[in-house]
Amino acid sequence: MTRQAFRGSFLDFVGDPFFEEDVNSVRYFPDGLMIVEAGIIQALGSYEVLHPQYPDIPVTEYIGKLILPGFVDTHIHFPQTEMIAAYGEQLLAWLHKYTFPTEAKFKDKDYAQRVASFFLEELLKNGTTTALVFTAVYPEAAEAFFEEAERRNLRMIAGKVMMDRHAPDHLIDTAESSYADSKRLIQKWHQRGRLRYAVTPRFAVTSTPEQLKLAAKLLQEFPDVHLHTHLAENVDEVRLVAEMFPESKHYLDVYDQAGLVGDRSVFAHGVQLSDEEFARLSQAGAAIAFCPTSNLFLGSGLFRIEQAKSVERPVKLGLGTDVGAGTSFSMLQTCNEAYKIGKLRRQKLSAFQALFLATLGGAQALRLDHYIGNFEAGKEADFVVLDPRCTPLLAFRNAKPADTLAAIAEQAFTLMMLGDDRAVHATYIMGNRYAPDAKC
Amino acid sequence: MTRQAFRGSFLDFVGDPFFEEDVNSVRYFPDGLMIVEAGIIQALGSYEVLHPQYPDIPVTEYIGKLILPGFVDTHIHFPQTEMIAAYGEQLLAWLHKYTFPTEAKFKDKDYAQRVASFFLEELLKNGTTTALVFTAVYPEAAEAFFEEAERRNLRMIAGKVMMDRHAPDHLIDTAESSYADSKRLIQKWHQRGRLRYAVTPRFAVTSTPEQLKLAAKLLQEFPDVHLHTHLAENVDEVRLVAEMFPESKHYLDVYDQAGLVGDRSVFAHGVQLSDEEFARLSQAGAAIAFCPTSNLFLGSGLFRIEQAKSVERPVKLGLGTDVGAGTSFSMLQTCNEAYKIGKLRRQKLSAFQALFLATLGGAQALRLDHYIGNFEAGKEADFVVLDPRCTPLLAFRNAKPADTLAAIAEQAFTLMMLGDDRAVHATYIMGNRYAPDAKC
Repeated sequence: MTRQAFRGSFLDFVGDPFFEEDVNSVRYFPDGLMIVEAGIIQALGSYEVLHPQYPDIPVTEYIGKLILPGFVDTHIHFPQTEMIAAYGEQLLAWLHKYTFPTEAKFKDKDYAQRVASFFLEELLKNGTTTALVFTAVYPEAAEAFFEEAERRNLRMIAGKVMMDRHAPDHLIDTAESSYADSKRLIQKWHQRGRLRYAVTPRFAVTSTPEQLKLAAKLLQEFPDVHLHTHLAENVDEVRLVAEMFPESKHYLDVYDQAGLVGDRSVFAHGVQLSDEEFARLSQAGAAIAFCPTSNLFLGSGLFRIEQAKSVERPVKLGLGTDVGAGTSFSMLQTCNEAYKIGKLRRQKLSAFQALFLATLGGAQALRLDHYIGNFEAGKEADFVVLDPRCTPLLAFRNAKPADTLAAIAEQAFTLMMLGDDRAVHATYIMGNRYAPDAKC
Repeated sequence: MTRQAFRGSFLDFVGDPFFEEDVNSVRYFPDGLMIVEAGIIQALGSYEVLHPQYPDIPVTEYIGKLILPGFVDTHIHFPQTEMIAAYGEQLLAWLHKYTFPTEAKFKDKDYAQRVASFFLEELLKNGTTTALVFTAVYPEAAEAFFEEAERRNLRMIAGKVMMDRHAPDHLIDTAESSYADSKRLIQKWHQRGRLRYAVTPRFAVTSTPEQLKLAAKLLQEFPDVHLHTHLAENVDEVRLVAEMFPESKHYLDVYDQAGLVGDRSVFAHGVQLSDEEFARLSQAGAAIAFCPTSNLFLGSGLFRIEQAKSVERPVKLGLGTDVGAGTSFSMLQTCNEAYKIGKLRRQKLSAFQALFLATLGGAQALRLDHYIGNFEAGKEADFVVLDPRCTPLLAFRNAKPADTLAAIAEQAFTLMMLGDDRAVHATYIMGNRYAPDAKC
């Protein structure tokens, strides 16, 4: 691959806007140039300064467009694509009524592959280039997902679901089989190209203590795999976990006692966490995937963003769509509802803070920030080209160009409130423009 | 205009699904035919039964599409179109920081007309055919709006904003001037074609008791005009109103003492209403416009749907987008967030209930249900043709046809959770397909 250059407005984060002034944490080049070679970012700067150093380079022009690092979705379930927007229930009933019957179809690898393909097309259309993905309990489903992700050269993390109780018989594994299947999948897929593996017990309710222990054993045997599960999403769930694990101090402690709480662990939701649990997550360097559209759709509650982002005990935080409980594949729409959850709690989530969570914050939560998350030289050129005027309403709203940090903050906010997949003009993977798969 | 026929799936309401079984309140013809003559609905039935009665009629085919009555938006501000998605504030600060400076531009009638035109195009693109609209304090803004609505032959209700205090000097009228200007506008526009007038004091904070009294005088002089204002949206606002009107029992009582609470009154929001206020609204036959995306965006709170829809003391209820505090012109997206607000309160808002609010419920709230709201013979043929497979995700989700009431309930729910203006295949006004205005 030869050297490439892209011109447009560039926005990324070099610090955390929850803790640092925008001027120190946000980079914005109203007329910027990014140099990419063999899929890797070589340089980013203002066009005026940088272009003279590359006088003969062919430039792909995105004048008037806003280029961000590819979005990072820190929690999503690919088999639930087809059951998005399932009516009426809160978490536990929703699982039994909709999720388990749907996931049962994913033993059929061909079917799983078709859905995985569709799912990845939806992600890419929405500008999401990396995700931490629940597959299903069947190794076939994980295989199908990894194959489709590899075919598209995506940086993805996924794992086979481990669940050995409290689900229909045909949907459960055993502690031993889940260990063996996960191990085989790790050996095959983890660190293969851009792929990574996450040990994926569904949640405390559907795993025996033995299964959780074997999950931890995998983490010990493969110290660079990830851990991905659910935590404290729903009031009834928290109560049930307390009943099932009377020897645990709190929900997080169930995972902690098993040895699953570490700096490569990502816990989805955390809506119902106590201060003590937040503190333990901070101490362990673990991450939370905040899933606004899902938390609202299932009525799970209002996540305490400011607690995760406290100066004293910060917890790594990313955003997740949590499709199929989430109602959109779009990280912009996810930012929209993150803002609304903040407002109901009298907090302000700025556009920079939200987009940080959707990019560098997510990459940090997944421990992938050495590879992706912003436009630092040496990182992989996964990026999204947004059109701030993609609909008549956005064009009307964003009539003026955004020449300053204040102006781009406003424009970015309109994109996250009013934008969706239509705002995604192009998605790039390792410097290659992603072309929708005609088969899908 | 000759006789027309439309074939497709038809869904409308002949009762209130909050109080009656779906089978009694919902009409669904999977393969239906609607006969329209001179813009008026003549008949609706199953294609098989009805078509033989009209053997030679040309049929516009919408096979696979879902036809609903045009959406009714019971609360929206046209001058705020350009400030949709304004960052960071709750109601009172948001008004002063964003709204008042924006509305100041609407003294310029040409400008007001351009925005009114754009605004109506957005409504129609989203399938909204009737709205109750705040204009601005300047009579020019109301004139501009009515002219643009008349040009499109729309059934719209609007009014000049009355506000004679607690706003910048250039934005306020006086009690007397607001009375005179409103009266002149009523005489010119009320009942002209499909248009209606609403006496429109902004809210208790920005009107003196004298202005509220003169507003009531207009209602007495013109007994069939509407009353449109805001009520109990925000905690700080309620506190401020209590301070400003110490002689009132509660917020609603401010309007009641002035003589503004009647069966043609529509109060936007009502998030912070007491049970006593709900009871009084019920008794008076007044209506509430529930504005979910706005209530979330401004952090106003969670409307108590079940209180408005209580069997003992029902209050007429419609949905409002409340653009520009609302974040979407789409009534489908408004239903999405209405559902989420319900879920946070452990309530279930079914698709039929939500779509009832967006159609017949809204028409009843605006006292326009003799003209619009469902497909009863004699009503005006304002309708929206929805495509349940308008995006790849919706096509994937709604692969099967919806042949039963249960199936259409599910499909309608996916449309309200995942749909937006893209789901609107066509909008019809009095039997004429609306063509977007090339000037906009």
